[in-house]
Amino acid sequence: MSRASSKWSSSLNTTRQLPKLSKGFLSSLKKVAGKGGLLTDPGDCWPYGYDNSRRQALPQAVVFASREEQVGGLVRLCTDAGVPLTARGLGTGTTGATVPDRGGIVLSFERMDRILRIAPEDRLAVVQPGVINASLQRAAESVGFFWPPDPTSAATCTIGGNLAYNSAGPRAVKYGTPRDNTLGLRAVSGAGDILKTGVQTTKGVVGYDLTRLIIGSEGTLALITEATLKLTPLPEAKRTLRATYADIHAAAQAVSAIMAQPVTPCALEFMDSSAIDMVSSYAGLDLPEGAGALLMIEVDGPAACIDEAQAAVGEAARGPGLLELRLAQSAQEVAALWKTRKALSPALRHIAPKKINEDVVVPVSRMGEFIDALERLSRETGIRIVNFGHAGNGNIHVNLLINPDDAEEVARAAECLDAVFSLVLRLDGSLSGEHGVGLEKRDFVHRELDPVALRLMHEIRSRFDPKGILSPGKSLPAPD
Amino acid sequence: MSRASSKWSSSLNTTRQLPKLSKGFLSSLKKVAGKGGLLTDPGDCWPYGYDNSRRQALPQAVVFASREEQVGGLVRLCTDAGVPLTARGLGTGTTGATVPDRGGIVLSFERMDRILRIAPEDRLAVVQPGVINASLQRAAESVGFFWPPDPTSAATCTIGGNLAYNSAGPRAVKYGTPRDNTLGLRAVSGAGDILKTGVQTTKGVVGYDLTRLIIGSEGTLALITEATLKLTPLPEAKRTLRATYADIHAAAQAVSAIMAQPVTPCALEFMDSSAIDMVSSYAGLDLPEGAGALLMIEVDGPAACIDEAQAAVGEAARGPGLLELRLAQSAQEVAALWKTRKALSPALRHIAPKKINEDVVVPVSRMGEFIDALERLSRETGIRIVNFGHAGNGNIHVNLLINPDDAEEVARAAECLDAVFSLVLRLDGSLSGEHGVGLEKRDFVHRELDPVALRLMHEIRSRFDPKGILSPGKSLPAPD
Repeated sequence: MSRASSKWSSSLNTTRQLPKLSKGFLSSLKKVAGKGGLLTDPGDCWPYGYDNSRRQALPQAVVFASREEQVGGLVRLCTDAGVPLTARGLGTGTTGATVPDRGGIVLSFERMDRILRIAPEDRLAVVQPGVINASLQRAAESVGFFWPPDPTSAATCTIGGNLAYNSAGPRAVKYGTPRDNTLGLRAVSGAGDILKTGVQTTKGVVGYDLTRLIIGSEGTLALITEATLKLTPLPEAKRTLRATYADIHAAAQAVSAIMAQPVTPCALEFMDSSAIDMVSSYAGLDLPEGAGALLMIEVDGPAACIDEAQAAVGEAARGPGLLELRLAQSAQEVAALWKTRKALSPALRHIAPKKINEDVVVPVSRMGEFIDALERLSRETGIRIVNFGHAGNGNIHVNLLINPDDAEEVARAAECLDAVFSLVLRLDGSLSGEHGVGLEKRDFVHRELDPVALRLMHEIRSRFDPKGILSPGKSLPAPD
Repeated sequence: MSRASSKWSSSLNTTRQLPKLSKGFLSSLKKVAGKGGLLTDPGDCWPYGYDNSRRQALPQAVVFASREEQVGGLVRLCTDAGVPLTARGLGTGTTGATVPDRGGIVLSFERMDRILRIAPEDRLAVVQPGVINASLQRAAESVGFFWPPDPTSAATCTIGGNLAYNSAGPRAVKYGTPRDNTLGLRAVSGAGDILKTGVQTTKGVVGYDLTRLIIGSEGTLALITEATLKLTPLPEAKRTLRATYADIHAAAQAVSAIMAQPVTPCALEFMDSSAIDMVSSYAGLDLPEGAGALLMIEVDGPAACIDEAQAAVGEAARGPGLLELRLAQSAQEVAALWKTRKALSPALRHIAPKKINEDVVVPVSRMGEFIDALERLSRETGIRIVNFGHAGNGNIHVNLLINPDDAEEVARAAECLDAVFSLVLRLDGSLSGEHGVGLEKRDFVHRELDPVALRLMHEIRSRFDPKGILSPGKSLPAPD
């Protein structure tokens, strides 16, 4: 089979010569893209070749689609010519999934940014993939609803990207991930065929579930051109608590206690002491002496029982090692708390440009054990590790801070990361909760994936994308 | 390719001669099944060849598996010999999916009925497929949790069956279907390979979502041997309301109003006037004069705000045509109300042995229009139609009551059913909300499924089950 990988075969950097796009191909590309829909100058293309993994590679052309038929035409063109095609929202992903490491075409969905329909009576929204998460939230809010997925990058990330990675964010602990909040899709397969999956209703069991198969597949099966999203009514009231503990173990115990009682928080975030140190400079945190870990706990629901909900999680948060439990008293205080949490990721980036940021998951009951082992690892390897994340899901952002100029440290960090992954799997966890695989984790996930399941995934991929043009080589490791 | 369908090619009745199982095959079968694990006498096998579709066909052997390796061995045996294999829980399905219409082997999961683990701190349960839904609920309840899927047959249906059909029941309106409440699976593919899918955590995006692909695939891709289920904390309090309306349109309007406000009921069931007539004989319903439709509305949540929740849905239920809104005052009254609702299906069965029971879904906002059109259809065709179901999901059990001895009426009913399906699709609905496809709807669902998606489904199926031995010919219509 002539697969895209045969010519565009290995990871390319910008200096290496890419296989040339033929004149015929370029002229067809122009036709498909339409006026103003194509970039070919390397200088113009360059900004479309990065994502938040800090990897970057030069696409040979960038196409801006405005309509589904254009996407179909472009995919067919690339399939016929065996040219790699990488779909892209706004580049906030952290795994390199949208970096065109083998050259070829980048398809930007930024112009397919229309909210097509919001139907409160059916609790759904129909959107194009380039709609920004925050724009959808604003539109839904105006009729009393929201869409639960809420990544830290909500202000700039697209729904298409959220679906590609199954990105969730803090609210997932109560409201689930995109897979739990999407009813149906329209998409273009790697063969260039337009397909429709799922339903417009909250039940439906006709045919296999291609909707959730495509969600989380990082643009390797089909390119989403439209999504029917399930909306949730906005809660009437919300309370934000900050609980400070002497150490991370006390905080982990509190998380277990909170998740074992009936009131499910709508956010349950944590920071370890390194993370606290890191953001202290950003904001006057006003923490009690000896603060070793911090939980942000949010509950929502009907106004009539928000006091009781707050009391229930507050009670569960009280345990040995609690130093302070504080209720945010004003909208300003809530905003300040969240600003702190959301500042963590960029703050880390600032301090350690080469941080390795993992988003592993372990069962909530194993978090204490996990954190213990991370501390041991940090001591043993001398690598500074900063942890924060979505504790209610056991989804921990483990950050290894390294000096990129210290080759020996870089090597130790690689070993340390390896040990982190082994640890996660030993604890029945997963290597990625919401960032996905892309290029960053591709060479690790075979450790987690069952070999039979992995083989089936490859076979499914080859049916959706027979020529292997959609993000070739990404997301799945080579079969065993 | 030597597919099972070549020899065991078409629907068989009990009188037709089935291809004989070879001596060698039977002796291997005995070895795989172990002592007491095999039936071959037709008289013994006969009870394992039916489901609640009232179809029945004779399996040539019945195997009772106790362990996953046995399932693997059996599937490999059937794959090698090209013998059809039909998996079965306890036969409560309504679509014929477990009826061995082409003979071959029936695999009963009734002995794989152990709850392996319940972990409240991680909000999960690990179960074998033969566990009865109600047994799981009891075990989960003892630690303060429940598993949301709750089909009417919960007392006798298995978790494996619930997963095979993605069966949901009334609580889905608030808590979702099995796809929303399952974290991971172990299964045996049609090639006889054991595979593991998903995670033990509430987030995870490594690899494609094979978990939800297998859920709802009716035993045509892989046979589930173990499931990790997501548990939900039991609500503290519950209230059950009965709202009676002058006619079904008033009730449909109330459903829309209830679903457009923030308090999501945990059940929102309805019955039309024919359904009311039908169950009146079962129970003293004590309905107001002129009752033309009935809603059962249940809300649950923290005790502290159950009054407010009840008030909110009650307010939404009040509209033109409301005759009475009554709160069940005691546990007895609640039980009586639910008994009425749950008696409907068997009552209908009793009155009309050949009832055609559909479980179509339409968007909630289209229910009024749908019911109108059904009434018109009933008048035009002279077929009596009884409607009830899960109104909050727009999941309506449309029952056509026919006299099986009246050939002319049977023919008219077929036309009527055809029109019902066209109507559902015109209203953006789905032909099955939770019963699935099996044999009953196989010849209709091509109208709903996108042809490209259907082709991909067939291709996926052929990768999971290369010899086509798992329930051959069922669930998916032939490709276009």
